[in-house]
Amino acid sequence: MFKHIKELQYNAKPTKPDPVYAKKLQEILGGQFGEITVMMQYLFQGWNCRGEQKYRDMLLDIGTEEIAHVEMLATMIAQLLDGAPAKEQDAIVDQNPAVEAVLGGMNPQHVIVSGLGAKASDSVGYPWTSRYTIASGNLLADFRANLNAESQGRLQAVRLYESTTDPGVRDMLSFLIARDTMHQNQFMAAIEELEQNQKPIVPSTFPQELEKQEVSYSFMNFSEGEESAQGRWATGQSMDKQANFEYIANPEAMGQVPNLNQAPAYIHDTPIPGQTSPKADSASHTQNN
Amino acid sequence: MFKHIKELQYNAKPTKPDPVYAKKLQEILGGQFGEITVMMQYLFQGWNCRGEQKYRDMLLDIGTEEIAHVEMLATMIAQLLDGAPAKEQDAIVDQNPAVEAVLGGMNPQHVIVSGLGAKASDSVGYPWTSRYTIASGNLLADFRANLNAESQGRLQAVRLYESTTDPGVRDMLSFLIARDTMHQNQFMAAIEELEQNQKPIVPSTFPQELEKQEVSYSFMNFSEGEESAQGRWATGQSMDKQANFEYIANPEAMGQVPNLNQAPAYIHDTPIPGQTSPKADSASHTQNN
Amino acid sequence: MFKHIKELQYNAKPTKPDPVYAKKLQEILGGQFGEITVMMQYLFQGWNCRGEQKYRDMLLDIGTEEIAHVEMLATMIAQLLDGAPAKEQDAIVDQNPAVEAVLGGMNPQHVIVSGLGAKASDSVGYPWTSRYTIASGNLLADFRANLNAESQGRLQAVRLYESTTDPGVRDMLSFLIARDTMHQNQFMAAIEELEQNQKPIVPSTFPQELEKQEVSYSFMNFSEGEESAQGRWATGQSMDKQANFEYIANPEAMGQVPNLNQAPAYIHDTPIPGQTSPKADSASHTQNN
Amino acid sequence: MFKHIKELQYNAKPTKPDPVYAKKLQEILGGQFGEITVMMQYLFQGWNCRGEQKYRDMLLDIGTEEIAHVEMLATMIAQLLDGAPAKEQDAIVDQNPAVEAVLGGMNPQHVIVSGLGAKASDSVGYPWTSRYTIASGNLLADFRANLNAESQGRLQAVRLYESTTDPGVRDMLSFLIARDTMHQNQFMAAIEELEQNQKPIVPSTFPQELEKQEVSYSFMNFSEGEESAQGRWATGQSMDKQANFEYIANPEAMGQVPNLNQAPAYIHDTPIPGQTSPKADSASHTQNN
Amino acid sequence: MFKHIKELQYNAKPTKPDPVYAKKLQEILGGQFGEITVMMQYLFQGWNCRGEQKYRDMLLDIGTEEIAHVEMLATMIAQLLDGAPAKEQDAIVDQNPAVEAVLGGMNPQHVIVSGLGAKASDSVGYPWTSRYTIASGNLLADFRANLNAESQGRLQAVRLYESTTDPGVRDMLSFLIARDTMHQNQFMAAIEELEQNQKPIVPSTFPQELEKQEVSYSFMNFSEGEESAQGRWATGQSMDKQANFEYIANPEAMGQVPNLNQAPAYIHDTPIPGQTSPKADSASHTQNN
Amino acid sequence: MFKHIKELQYNAKPTKPDPVYAKKLQEILGGQFGEITVMMQYLFQGWNCRGEQKYRDMLLDIGTEEIAHVEMLATMIAQLLDGAPAKEQDAIVDQNPAVEAVLGGMNPQHVIVSGLGAKASDSVGYPWTSRYTIASGNLLADFRANLNAESQGRLQAVRLYESTTDPGVRDMLSFLIARDTMHQNQFMAAIEELEQNQKPIVPSTFPQELEKQEVSYSFMNFSEGEESAQGRWATGQSMDKQANFEYIANPEAMGQVPNLNQAPAYIHDTPIPGQTSPKADSASHTQNN
Repeated sequence: MFKHIKELQYNAKPTKPDPVYAKKLQEILGGQFGEITVMMQYLFQGWNCRGEQKYRDMLLDIGTEEIAHVEMLATMIAQLLDGAPAKEQDAIVDQNPAVEAVLGGMNPQHVIVSGLGAKASDSVGYPWTSRYTIASGNLLADFRANLNAESQGRLQAVRLYESTTDPGVRDMLSFLIARDTMHQNQFMAAIEELEQNQKPIVPSTFPQELEKQEVSYSFMNFSEGEESAQGRWATGQSMDKQANFEYIANPEAMGQVPNLNQAPAYIHDTPIPGQTSPKADSASHTQNN
Repeated sequence: MFKHIKELQYNAKPTKPDPVYAKKLQEILGGQFGEITVMMQYLFQGWNCRGEQKYRDMLLDIGTEEIAHVEMLATMIAQLLDGAPAKEQDAIVDQNPAVEAVLGGMNPQHVIVSGLGAKASDSVGYPWTSRYTIASGNLLADFRANLNAESQGRLQAVRLYESTTDPGVRDMLSFLIARDTMHQNQFMAAIEELEQNQKPIVPSTFPQELEKQEVSYSFMNFSEGEESAQGRWATGQSMDKQANFEYIANPEAMGQVPNLNQAPAYIHDTPIPGQTSPKADSASHTQNN
Repeated sequence: MFKHIKELQYNAKPTKPDPVYAKKLQEILGGQFGEITVMMQYLFQGWNCRGEQKYRDMLLDIGTEEIAHVEMLATMIAQLLDGAPAKEQDAIVDQNPAVEAVLGGMNPQHVIVSGLGAKASDSVGYPWTSRYTIASGNLLADFRANLNAESQGRLQAVRLYESTTDPGVRDMLSFLIARDTMHQNQFMAAIEELEQNQKPIVPSTFPQELEKQEVSYSFMNFSEGEESAQGRWATGQSMDKQANFEYIANPEAMGQVPNLNQAPAYIHDTPIPGQTSPKADSASHTQNN
Repeated sequence: MFKHIKELQYNAKPTKPDPVYAKKLQEILGGQFGEITVMMQYLFQGWNCRGEQKYRDMLLDIGTEEIAHVEMLATMIAQLLDGAPAKEQDAIVDQNPAVEAVLGGMNPQHVIVSGLGAKASDSVGYPWTSRYTIASGNLLADFRANLNAESQGRLQAVRLYESTTDPGVRDMLSFLIARDTMHQNQFMAAIEELEQNQKPIVPSTFPQELEKQEVSYSFMNFSEGEESAQGRWATGQSMDKQANFEYIANPEAMGQVPNLNQAPAYIHDTPIPGQTSPKADSASHTQNN
Repeated sequence: MFKHIKELQYNAKPTKPDPVYAKKLQEILGGQFGEITVMMQYLFQGWNCRGEQKYRDMLLDIGTEEIAHVEMLATMIAQLLDGAPAKEQDAIVDQNPAVEAVLGGMNPQHVIVSGLGAKASDSVGYPWTSRYTIASGNLLADFRANLNAESQGRLQAVRLYESTTDPGVRDMLSFLIARDTMHQNQFMAAIEELEQNQKPIVPSTFPQELEKQEVSYSFMNFSEGEESAQGRWATGQSMDKQANFEYIANPEAMGQVPNLNQAPAYIHDTPIPGQTSPKADSASHTQNN
Repeated sequence: MFKHIKELQYNAKPTKPDPVYAKKLQEILGGQFGEITVMMQYLFQGWNCRGEQKYRDMLLDIGTEEIAHVEMLATMIAQLLDGAPAKEQDAIVDQNPAVEAVLGGMNPQHVIVSGLGAKASDSVGYPWTSRYTIASGNLLADFRANLNAESQGRLQAVRLYESTTDPGVRDMLSFLIARDTMHQNQFMAAIEELEQNQKPIVPSTFPQELEKQEVSYSFMNFSEGEESAQGRWATGQSMDKQANFEYIANPEAMGQVPNLNQAPAYIHDTPIPGQTSPKADSASHTQNN
């Protein structure tokens, strides 16, 4: 169960309206790595958690914080929209191309659909979808998803910080960026803890002798030229400490040339010359009736 | 540019048809962490790469390999569909509930739409979407995305391995699982290399003094009870070695109570008693014409 | 079955082309509450109607009218696009930022994809989806959906009316707005009629003694502060006249602390220290083959 | 800002696992009228609210409650999945068609993707999308959306109640159904309050003389036969008390026969015999370079 | 404008209910090549038509017919759902695995969401989307789209015919299949007519000297082995009669090795060792404030 | 299996950056008829091919070429983005409306999400979806899909050619346009070959006596006025040479007036006055527990 506190977690006050920037800021509200994604991701990971209680609690704590971040961004966007020159004729009367540019650069749904309110969409107006949410039941896998989400999310917040000079917006972003610093640290810590308790390859519980082990540590070079041999991934001990990396400069195909069976007549794929006619078959269906 | 080799990278031959399993196997072909996702993700990361050439080459090598995995899975699924009892009346004539069950468990589009061919969809028939593809231009962020994708992907392949006893299917999966072992190792190695060249917090280039540093290392407990204090993320040195973790048992709101301005009249939000009538305004529009 | 009449239901002629406005007008053609939505919603409600014939007929009458509204909007948009400065070089030669702004503000698919034709998309280019369509089989529920659709739709049409000064566009919108006035009235009338024949809570046929009646009339205050106590919903007789509203200032949790079972080994969730190894289990699968 | 309470708002404990029912129950978690929809809808309406404070508070109170309903459903679904016979060979060994039927009837992503956890999807596995969320800035419009959502939602919960005999599941549903009774009452009360303060036609602030008033109260019969004349919507005073309903048995077209201009040459639509060749035009582009 | 006729265009009466088949039949109602697609496609092509009037009229005639097909399919599906054993306990009481299989094979939304009504979705429950609709403004291109749609549509209807023995369903399908025969013929005729008036390559109005003509008639073999040389496309006169086909057994790359510029500092892509620090740049932003 | 060649198939070098054009060019990368669509379509048709080997090989050859086209477009777009004025303040400082216009006209995700890289989306930012991919198993049907895709694709490339004067972009487009010329020719040739081996109506294997032959060659005029009678489709021999076209000026309805059964009580549709109360029924459920 949840309770709402009326104050925001941190201030969300722009210095002046900026409806074009409001459109951009939607990315970290309703985009693939926006706050709705991490909110839903951590809450669902917590609710589905079948592991130790401390993980469930940690996930629900951070998921609950992310609801507050959604709230901050929605509040900020609504205020950035305050000055929307929604009346086209204002621009026309003024013959002011800059105003017209603003109109062109806005998300039109901010006027027509939400009436100067935030939407749960990204910066191109694409709606948030739960396919962004990752919750597999395997915590090591999911903490890697979370570390990625916090990395992509902080990167996007920084790019948005660079795209404005509004001190109020930057102040709010500096808070979100700092929390992303913590959250990257947090999931790195959780990953380290889990990797020490189990093997680092997810899932650690699958018996490795059941996999095709001769290709488990081979980098395969599928191009001419071998620049890809220069990385850490091509030589030395593997990261799971089970073997050494191997570089295969010219990987060979190990499988068959595919040769599919003809489809049965009732599928009506392309007839092949010489095939038995499916006509009799279809006719018999009718006679059954 | 690309060339096609007619042999598969590894064998993809089921021992017998199994159209219900074909539906499930679609998950690692066209699902969020299926082979189409990693194929597109690594190719786009490579094509967009503005970093060192070895990263571009590595990404395009592995992306090219993933096209071959898509090919293997498509071939396998087409063969698993060979025995589809597509004619409903066969089941009815037989009064055989097991056959009926198979019909109920199949993806109907495997008969009606693709004519016993694989589709670029997941196990519930949802189409693959490029919103699954992650390519940010920041390699450390993206390699974390890749490590996650290989973790989720191997987990799903293992669950599918557990869901069949067909030796041919298991043989193919044992190959894909082994490659996922390599690919998890590979991206762990690439991450380690990058983290040694830059700070581990993405993006490492944003000056940390610009973020709200008092909350950069604090775990905030947004629930009653403190199970979440027991993890590595709540105490000790932070993973980026810049500070120590702090546990805040009762985080306080630091922001304002939001109070939005009334919308301008031409937005036609809810009128508030005492507000100036917007009627005059609308009427004047007409007089302008 | 349907017949087409070549005249439009009402005039749809802009005074001059305006490709930026064409993009906006798409919202009430292909958006969530655009004419395609109500067309499909009323037609499907009519075709699925298992109630009295007068409801089916009414729904199909209005659904048929909405096809004509789709036609009017498509025709209007095609004409608004007539003057699209599709050739980028015209703007460049002119060094005319206003023209460039127009180019930036257009929907590029109006040139590239539809060749100056209307699309079945909304104002941000998102395609119409049938998930917008509501048809539940329960007419009281669905008439509430319809009243909502006509309310949102008229609101959006009014906002678009405010966003243009073109007399031809305003003339067409004044017709659509008037029809929305009628359609709001119409569904209010139909709702009143149904509410008088049955109880107003949907579905009226579920025996109320089967619901948890102690919470059926309680407003629960999930925040500090009690502004929410000031509304009609917090005191007085309930709208269904079965009880009085009750305001619960501090709602208590009534449920358990969730505690999920560990997943079976073949799911390969996070291993918990001390758990039986799943290795033997997986190995036995192989021995089965 | 939000806080999490570890107890559920109400019990969510099934008597026994039922993975096929888990798939169905997803509808009221992640479907169009599931708890995620109302949670997001009320929170966004509250955060975007520019009206009186009591409406904002009421919306955030109920939105916060809906997060708790999402939590209850996720917890219930995870437990219903406990007994999933995820290993196909169990069914095969048993030659038990009922077990096979269960496998066919499950959502395969409950095993492969979420590892026996709830997903933010509906009963056919379609992901939740924010296009379900309605928040227009006009409270009367939005309260009608909310009344509809609570009507559709209660109807679906009742149908799910009828589809199980599990006492634990029914107990939880009896709570949700009761809350939907309250929430229908609540939004009916809020609507009544707003309709008394303003005119009932949304938006009430648009001057009615600007709409095409001769069609504002006419029911138009777009079919042969006049069953649709029998309803309250066809005769008597209109619901907004501004006029009387009128029934038009044979509505006439009032608009033009559309006749679109030919597209400019650079659009490359179908050439019409006799049209000036666009070739010269394209060639001149090249000469510009 | 449109009028509704209460009779269906052709009978749509099943002999007995079959809710599993109802799920499958959704494919040709709401799938990619279902009747909604062709209805919307022909109507939008007609409304957007800037060519000769006879094409507009033909498109609107057939689009209007397709609304009637949507109506027939919706009516059929509602009747197929009549016998849905929606009450799970019936199956449980009976211990009848066939009934359980039916439940597993149904689309659960046919009970929970639409209350035994048709939905505008396909056979896996995926909603119809307007991205299926093709209308480019170029009639030759679009008539090819239409010929394809009628080919895919008839193929799917035939597969569904083969999947049932119900005489009523087959009777309706025999009508739709016959109309698809006509519609394939119709668009083949329209294509022939247009190809005789213009060149067959779409768009015919682009000056061919502006394309890279040395590759305009070459089949490029991107694999080892030359089975692809055996087709009509590899030798002989080209279909547009402008040249002869050429078979290139070993196509060479004609382009550059890509080498992208480093991103500017404010994008925060991966830093490259030796790069100027972006720190000063970000700091200066702050000083601007 | 596949191999990567580091050179592009053809040059992809813009003369200067143009981030607004980069947004438009996305249409033929990730749009409905972009290169990703044809890549996936031909590869899946090839992998699923159950026909003669020459068709499989041809499809995989062209599918492999299309991967190279995706690569060229991604490379081009990344370079067009080079000059993105991502820092908003540059525009503000300059008070330069043209720069502001560029910012408004860009796809904001090109900065925030992909860091100046191409995305697998279309020109309005909508993600590529596999529902664009057509692969039915019937080659004649699919070659018609392919001819359509190459027609729509070439049309869009030509419109984009007209929308730029950049010689480097035009050079690349001239190559893609030429390849589309070949690919239209190629599929026209393949269609001719298949139509000579089988009847032209897809699927040719369905016995025509099973379809409702009296409507197989009739054009039905669903409007007043007979402009549609002027086309080739209304008179003369049908294209499949089986009959003559017939023009039906006033098509009559041939079907029933639909009349659906009342839904069973547990569906809770609208109650009809006089219906048996469903209350007893629901109560008995409870007694079962």
